[in-house]
Amino acid sequence: MDTATATLPMPAPQDLDLVAVLGALADPARLEIVAALAQVPEAACGQLLEGRMAKSTRSHHLRVLREAGVIAVRAEGTYKFSRLRRDDLDTRFPGLLDAIVTGALPVVGGNPPAAGPLGRAAAAPRTQ
Amino acid sequence: MDTATATLPMPAPQDLDLVAVLGALADPARLEIVAALAQVPEAACGQLLEGRMAKSTRSHHLRVLREAGVIAVRAEGTYKFSRLRRDDLDTRFPGLLDAIVTGALPVVGGNPPAAGPLGRAAAAPRTQ
Repeated sequence: MDTATATLPMPAPQDLDLVAVLGALADPARLEIVAALAQVPEAACGQLLEGRMAKSTRSHHLRVLREAGVIAVRAEGTYKFSRLRRDDLDTRFPGLLDAIVTGALPVVGGNPPAAGPLGRAAAAPRTQ
Repeated sequence: MDTATATLPMPAPQDLDLVAVLGALADPARLEIVAALAQVPEAACGQLLEGRMAKSTRSHHLRVLREAGVIAVRAEGTYKFSRLRRDDLDTRFPGLLDAIVTGALPVVGGNPPAAGPLGRAAAAPRTQ
Protein backbone atom coordinates (compact mmCIF):
# COMPACT_ATOMS: atom_id res chain seq x y z
CA MET A 1 0.00 0.00 0.00
CA ASP A 2 1.49 3.33 -1.03
CA THR A 3 1.73 6.23 1.37
CA ALA A 4 1.59 9.82 0.17
CA THR A 5 4.86 11.73 0.43
CA ALA A 6 4.82 15.44 1.21
CA THR A 7 7.82 17.75 1.21
CA LEU A 8 7.75 20.23 4.07
CA PRO A 9 7.98 23.95 3.21
CA MET A 10 11.45 25.30 2.45
CA PRO A 11 12.95 28.23 0.55
CA ALA A 12 13.33 27.85 -3.22
CA PRO A 13 16.93 27.43 -4.45
CA GLN A 14 17.10 31.01 -5.71
CA ASP A 15 15.93 32.29 -2.33
CA LEU A 16 18.71 30.66 -0.32
CA ASP A 17 20.24 33.36 1.85
CA LEU A 18 23.84 33.19 3.06
CA VAL A 19 23.11 34.94 6.35
CA ALA A 20 20.26 32.53 7.09
CA VAL A 21 22.35 29.49 6.14
CA LEU A 22 25.29 30.59 8.28
CA GLY A 23 22.98 31.41 11.16
CA ALA A 24 21.39 27.98 10.99
CA LEU A 25 24.79 26.30 10.96
CA ALA A 26 26.20 28.36 13.84
CA ASP A 27 25.14 25.79 16.42
CA PRO A 28 26.99 22.67 17.60
CA ALA A 29 23.95 20.36 17.45
CA ARG A 30 22.93 21.53 14.00
CA LEU A 31 26.51 21.19 12.74
CA GLU A 32 26.45 17.64 14.03
CA ILE A 33 23.17 16.89 12.26
CA VAL A 34 24.58 18.30 9.02
CA ALA A 35 27.79 16.28 9.38
CA ALA A 36 25.68 13.16 9.92
CA LEU A 37 23.47 13.86 6.91
CA ALA A 38 26.56 14.45 4.76
CA GLN A 39 27.30 10.75 5.06
CA VAL A 40 23.98 9.38 3.79
CA PRO A 41 21.56 10.15 0.95
CA GLU A 42 18.73 10.50 3.44
CA ALA A 43 18.04 9.71 7.09
CA ALA A 44 14.96 9.01 9.13
CA CYS A 45 14.60 12.08 11.35
CA GLY A 46 13.84 9.86 14.33
CA GLN A 47 17.20 8.14 13.98
CA LEU A 48 19.33 11.28 13.70
CA LEU A 49 21.58 11.49 16.76
CA GLU A 50 19.19 9.09 18.46
CA GLY A 51 19.39 9.17 22.22
CA ARG A 52 21.65 12.20 22.12
CA MET A 53 19.03 14.91 22.47
CA ALA A 54 15.35 15.23 23.33
CA LYS A 55 12.96 14.63 20.45
CA SER A 56 11.61 18.20 20.76
CA THR A 57 15.14 19.62 20.64
CA ARG A 58 15.92 17.64 17.50
CA SER A 59 12.64 18.75 15.91
CA HIS A 60 13.56 22.36 16.63
CA HIS A 61 17.01 22.01 15.08
CA LEU A 62 15.62 20.24 12.00
CA ARG A 63 13.07 23.00 11.55
CA VAL A 64 15.75 25.71 11.73
CA LEU A 65 17.87 23.85 9.17
CA ARG A 66 14.88 23.31 6.87
CA GLU A 67 13.66 26.91 7.05
CA ALA A 68 17.17 28.17 6.25
CA GLY A 69 17.30 25.87 3.22
CA VAL A 70 20.05 23.59 4.49
CA ILE A 71 17.95 20.41 4.54
CA ALA A 72 14.82 19.10 2.86
CA VAL A 73 12.35 17.08 4.91
CA ARG A 74 9.73 14.76 3.47
CA ALA A 75 6.92 13.18 5.42
CA GLU A 76 5.83 9.69 4.52
CA GLY A 77 2.96 8.49 6.65
CA THR A 78 4.01 9.10 10.23
CA TYR A 79 7.72 9.12 9.37
CA LYS A 80 9.93 12.02 8.30
CA PHE A 81 13.13 11.80 6.32
CA SER A 82 15.82 14.47 6.01
CA ARG A 83 18.47 15.08 3.42
CA LEU A 84 21.02 17.81 2.82
CA ARG A 85 20.15 20.16 -0.03
CA ARG A 86 23.64 19.62 -1.38
CA ASP A 87 22.98 20.49 -5.02
CA ASP A 88 21.08 23.66 -4.18
CA LEU A 89 23.70 24.79 -1.68
CA ASP A 90 26.62 23.92 -3.97
CA THR A 91 25.03 25.88 -6.81
CA ARG A 92 24.29 28.92 -4.70
CA PHE A 93 27.36 28.90 -2.42
CA PRO A 94 30.07 26.82 -4.11
CA GLY A 95 32.34 25.03 -1.67
CA LEU A 96 30.53 26.22 1.44
CA LEU A 97 28.91 22.97 2.52
CA ASP A 98 32.05 20.90 2.00
CA ALA A 99 34.14 23.42 3.93
CA ILE A 100 31.68 23.43 6.81
CA VAL A 101 31.28 19.66 6.95
CA THR A 102 35.08 19.26 6.87
CA GLY A 103 35.49 21.96 9.50
CA ALA A 104 32.83 20.36 11.67
CA LEU A 105 34.59 16.99 11.79
CA PRO A 106 36.74 17.85 14.83
CA VAL A 107 33.58 19.00 16.62
CA VAL A 108 31.65 15.89 15.65
CA GLY A 109 34.75 13.81 16.37
CA GLY A 110 34.23 14.53 20.04
CA ASN A 111 31.31 12.08 20.17
CA PRO A 112 31.58 8.67 21.77
CA PRO A 113 32.85 6.45 18.93
CA ALA A 114 30.34 3.69 19.66
CA ALA A 115 27.36 5.91 18.93
CA GLY A 116 28.40 7.15 15.49
CA PRO A 117 27.05 10.30 13.89
CA LEU A 118 23.59 8.89 13.31
CA GLY A 119 23.19 7.66 16.86
CA ARG A 120 22.81 4.03 17.80
CA ALA A 121 20.49 3.16 14.95
CA ALA A 122 21.50 2.41 11.38
CA ALA A 123 21.65 5.20 8.82
CA ALA A 124 19.29 3.62 6.33
CA PRO A 125 15.73 4.95 6.50
CA ARG A 126 13.20 2.53 7.87
CA THR A 127 10.76 1.10 5.37
CA GLN A 128 7.17 0.86 6.37
CA MET B 1 58.60 59.31 15.58
CA ASP B 2 57.57 55.70 15.96
CA THR B 3 54.23 54.80 17.49
CA ALA B 4 53.83 51.56 19.40
CA THR B 5 51.63 48.96 17.68
CA ALA B 6 49.44 46.71 19.79
CA THR B 7 47.40 43.78 18.54
CA LEU B 8 44.02 43.57 20.21
CA PRO B 9 43.09 40.30 21.98
CA MET B 10 41.93 37.46 19.76
CA PRO B 11 41.72 33.67 19.93
CA ALA B 12 44.88 31.72 19.10
CA PRO B 13 44.79 29.85 15.76
CA GLN B 14 44.28 26.49 17.47
CA ASP B 15 41.35 27.90 19.44
CA LEU B 16 39.36 29.01 16.38
CA ASP B 17 35.86 27.59 16.76
CA LEU B 18 33.64 26.86 13.77
CA VAL B 19 30.41 27.69 15.60
CA ALA B 20 31.84 31.03 16.76
CA VAL B 21 33.16 31.84 13.27
CA LEU B 22 29.85 30.99 11.58
CA GLY B 23 27.94 32.93 14.22
CA ALA B 24 30.10 36.00 13.66
CA LEU B 25 29.59 35.77 9.90
CA ALA B 26 25.82 35.26 10.09
CA ASP B 27 25.13 38.98 9.81
CA PRO B 28 24.79 41.11 6.66
CA ALA B 29 26.96 43.97 7.92
CA ARG B 30 29.71 41.68 9.11
CA LEU B 31 29.62 39.73 5.83
CA GLU B 32 30.05 43.03 4.06
CA ILE B 33 33.02 44.00 6.23
CA VAL B 34 34.63 40.61 5.56
CA ALA B 35 34.02 40.92 1.80
CA ALA B 36 35.63 44.37 1.90
CA LEU B 37 38.64 43.15 3.88
CA ALA B 38 39.09 40.25 1.44
CA GLN B 39 40.11 42.81 -1.18
CA VAL B 40 42.93 44.50 0.74
CA PRO B 41 45.83 43.40 2.93
CA GLU B 42 44.63 45.69 5.69
CA ALA B 43 42.17 48.55 6.14
CA ALA B 44 41.88 51.46 8.53
CA CYS B 45 38.88 50.61 10.68
CA GLY B 46 37.61 54.17 10.36
CA GLN B 47 37.40 53.82 6.59
CA LEU B 48 35.53 50.49 6.52
CA LEU B 49 32.08 51.06 5.02
CA GLU B 50 32.54 54.73 5.84
CA GLY B 51 29.30 56.66 6.03
CA ARG B 52 27.31 53.43 5.82
CA MET B 53 26.82 52.75 9.51
CA ALA B 54 27.29 54.50 12.83
CA LYS B 55 30.79 54.39 14.25
CA SER B 56 29.55 52.52 17.32
CA THR B 57 27.78 49.93 15.14
CA ARG B 58 30.94 49.35 13.13
CA SER B 59 32.98 49.04 16.34
CA HIS B 60 30.55 46.43 17.61
CA HIS B 61 30.75 44.39 14.40
CA LEU B 62 34.55 44.58 14.33
CA ARG B 63 34.71 43.41 17.94
CA VAL B 64 32.46 40.41 17.19
CA LEU B 65 34.61 39.48 14.19
CA ARG B 66 37.82 39.88 16.19
CA GLU B 67 36.60 37.88 19.19
CA ALA B 68 35.48 35.05 16.88
CA GLY B 69 38.92 35.03 15.25
CA VAL B 70 37.82 36.20 11.81
CA ILE B 71 39.88 39.42 11.83
CA ALA B 72 42.95 40.77 13.58
CA VAL B 73 42.97 44.39 14.72
CA ARG B 74 46.08 46.38 15.53
CA ALA B 75 46.12 49.75 17.19
CA GLU B 76 48.71 52.28 16.12
CA GLY B 77 48.46 55.49 18.06
CA THR B 78 44.84 56.56 17.81
CA TYR B 79 44.21 54.53 14.63
CA LYS B 80 43.12 50.94 14.30
CA PHE B 81 43.71 48.66 11.34
CA SER B 82 41.88 45.42 10.52
CA ARG B 83 42.84 42.46 8.42
CA LEU B 84 41.28 39.09 7.72
CA ARG B 85 43.01 36.19 9.48
CA ARG B 86 43.09 34.40 6.17
CA ASP B 87 46.00 32.06 6.88
CA ASP B 88 44.66 31.01 10.27
CA LEU B 89 41.16 30.44 8.90
CA ASP B 90 42.39 28.60 5.79
CA THR B 91 44.51 26.30 7.95
CA ARG B 92 41.72 25.53 10.40
CA PHE B 93 38.72 25.50 8.02
CA PRO B 94 40.05 24.95 4.47
CA GLY B 95 37.96 26.65 1.81
CA LEU B 96 35.50 28.23 4.25
CA LEU B 97 36.55 31.86 3.93
CA ASP B 98 36.71 31.77 0.13
CA ALA B 99 33.29 30.11 -0.08
CA ILE B 100 31.77 32.71 2.23
CA VAL B 101 33.38 35.69 0.51
CA THR B 102 32.24 34.35 -2.88
CA GLY B 103 28.77 33.64 -1.54
CA ALA B 104 28.60 37.12 0.01
CA LEU B 105 29.27 38.90 -3.28
CA PRO B 106 25.60 39.08 -4.34
CA VAL B 107 24.79 40.54 -0.91
CA VAL B 108 27.60 43.07 -1.09
CA GLY B 109 26.77 43.73 -4.73
CA GLY B 110 23.60 45.46 -3.54
CA ASN B 111 25.64 48.49 -2.45
CA PRO B 112 25.66 51.75 -4.35
CA PRO B 113 28.43 51.29 -6.94
CA ALA B 114 29.94 54.73 -6.28
CA ALA B 115 30.69 53.94 -2.66
CA GLY B 116 32.65 50.73 -3.16
CA PRO B 117 33.10 48.10 -0.50
CA LEU B 118 35.41 50.23 1.63
CA GLY B 119 33.16 53.25 1.59
CA ARG B 120 34.02 56.58 0.03
CA ALA B 121 37.59 56.68 1.29
CA ALA B 122 40.54 54.85 -0.22
CA ALA B 123 41.46 51.38 1.02
CA ALA B 124 45.08 52.18 1.85
CA PRO B 125 45.65 52.76 5.55
CA ARG B 126 46.46 56.31 6.48
CA THR B 127 50.04 56.99 7.59
CA GLN B 128 50.58 59.20 10.57
